[in-house]
Amino acid sequence: MTERPRPEPRSAYRHFRAISTRWMDNDVYGHVNNVQYYSFFDTAVNGYLIDRGVLDPQNGAVIGLVVETACSYFESVTFPDELHAGLRVARIGTSSVRYEVGIFRGAAELASAQGHFVHVYVARATWRPAVLPEAFRQALAPLVARA
Amino acid sequence: MTERPRPEPRSAYRHFRAISTRWMDNDVYGHVNNVQYYSFFDTAVNGYLIDRGVLDPQNGAVIGLVVETACSYFESVTFPDELHAGLRVARIGTSSVRYEVGIFRGAAELASAQGHFVHVYVARATWRPAVLPEAFRQALAPLVARA
Amino acid sequence: MTERPRPEPRSAYRHFRAISTRWMDNDVYGHVNNVQYYSFFDTAVNGYLIDRGVLDPQNGAVIGLVVETACSYFESVTFPDELHAGLRVARIGTSSVRYEVGIFRGAAELASAQGHFVHVYVARATWRPAVLPEAFRQALAPLVARA
Amino acid sequence: MTERPRPEPRSAYRHFRAISTRWMDNDVYGHVNNVQYYSFFDTAVNGYLIDRGVLDPQNGAVIGLVVETACSYFESVTFPDELHAGLRVARIGTSSVRYEVGIFRGAAELASAQGHFVHVYVARATWRPAVLPEAFRQALAPLVARA
Repeated sequence: MTERPRPEPRSAYRHFRAISTRWMDNDVYGHVNNVQYYSFFDTAVNGYLIDRGVLDPQNGAVIGLVVETACSYFESVTFPDELHAGLRVARIGTSSVRYEVGIFRGAAELASAQGHFVHVYVARATWRPAVLPEAFRQALAPLVARA
Repeated sequence: MTERPRPEPRSAYRHFRAISTRWMDNDVYGHVNNVQYYSFFDTAVNGYLIDRGVLDPQNGAVIGLVVETACSYFESVTFPDELHAGLRVARIGTSSVRYEVGIFRGAAELASAQGHFVHVYVARATWRPAVLPEAFRQALAPLVARA
Repeated sequence: MTERPRPEPRSAYRHFRAISTRWMDNDVYGHVNNVQYYSFFDTAVNGYLIDRGVLDPQNGAVIGLVVETACSYFESVTFPDELHAGLRVARIGTSSVRYEVGIFRGAAELASAQGHFVHVYVARATWRPAVLPEAFRQALAPLVARA
Repeated sequence: MTERPRPEPRSAYRHFRAISTRWMDNDVYGHVNNVQYYSFFDTAVNGYLIDRGVLDPQNGAVIGLVVETACSYFESVTFPDELHAGLRVARIGTSSVRYEVGIFRGAAELASAQGHFVHVYVARATWRPAVLPEAFRQALAPLVARA
């Protein structure tokens, strides 16, 4: 609860994905429930990998399992806001990748929420860690951001 | 299970709303789970009413409660498909409205799924049926489709 | 909007499954959102089939795809209510089954909502309709209710 | 990705809530999607506060907004698993509380996932931080765990 992160600008991210909110995202307090942001995170990450042709969730030899996520919430978003998920890669390991995601409301310059999402890439057949395939590394290269 | 409806074309609907799918929408069979379509339905209906300025979910005197919904599924949609929800109004009663919704995948001409959604409009304070306000009737007029 | 169904008693159902509500189920009106009931429906149906050992969603030769659902809502349920989903089978066809489900709140005798759910059973490899396996028929026999 | 936490035993938590999984929780990899765990977290926290009579989401003067969450995932859970969410309080501040939650599958002794959830308590009317009411402090006292 100390050292609370500060909202980052759009320029801190390398790629953006438009995400439309849904009526059901709003909770009893009339804003998007905290849980839904994680659905934006895995939509941003997996959507990028699928669009680049490197992740095939149904048939690919290597899939990504989530081992850690976190999010800090700065201000509310509310249906029917249109959102953009900003994406960058903070670290590429042998089998794992740390993604960082910011959620931006409409034309806002600062993130409403931001967090991270760690994928471990595993062999589909065994769910044991796999060396990150070269195609993934190439697809991720444009997302890499230096701190 | 007899008299199964047939998928309708986009021209059968009067208004469209873009809806982005999410990773989490896909179920174990790799397509968007049947439940999520109803989230597209209430997003289309409530989004239209909010955008037209007639529904204020947090403060308005009249809100819409759902009393009946149904959906027929014709073919799968899959994240990361982009969808359009087509909307029309089939009947306006004293306090209730029957909306009909079709879900279209990408540029497809025929609906992947279609169904209906009946709202009863009630006073926020009592949840008793209210006469549909004139502002709602005007907002809904462009959606009315004759069978 | 005519011929609106009436809530049925627990005795109209043949099997019950306990379902705990979640904070996120509540929408801006403070009650469980209409969409979530369909998640209770497919939890009741698939849960029954998995518990009986006839449906194996990941490896079984035959899986169930949803082709039609509907629900009528009578009164609200609200987190943290505990629910029971009542289940019965209304019709078994060559490849399809019509399930009917009632959602009961706490100890309530009458359903808060009720509806139906039609599964077509298909070969996993082709998604073409399959003759309903004998093991499914036997598992479903105790659920069959005469009108 | 260094200093990865280790799964804790049930004895590390002070209160447990049963949570039934749902068909829709399973994602394309056949296990409960990472997002859903956060729905278990806010169900555990808010459910506890509602059951103790201190949080009234619709009318209470003070409500809890989420400012930070995180989760580490150790092993999969899969519908129809029955889960228990273990809950403890790590820190009570002037207006905020840090909860820690572990998700246990069936009779498992070690957590399948664990994380934290920080609520800031605010005045409903203004969404400005409020001093945590004495009733909340008393309700939370049994959950406090020393590190």
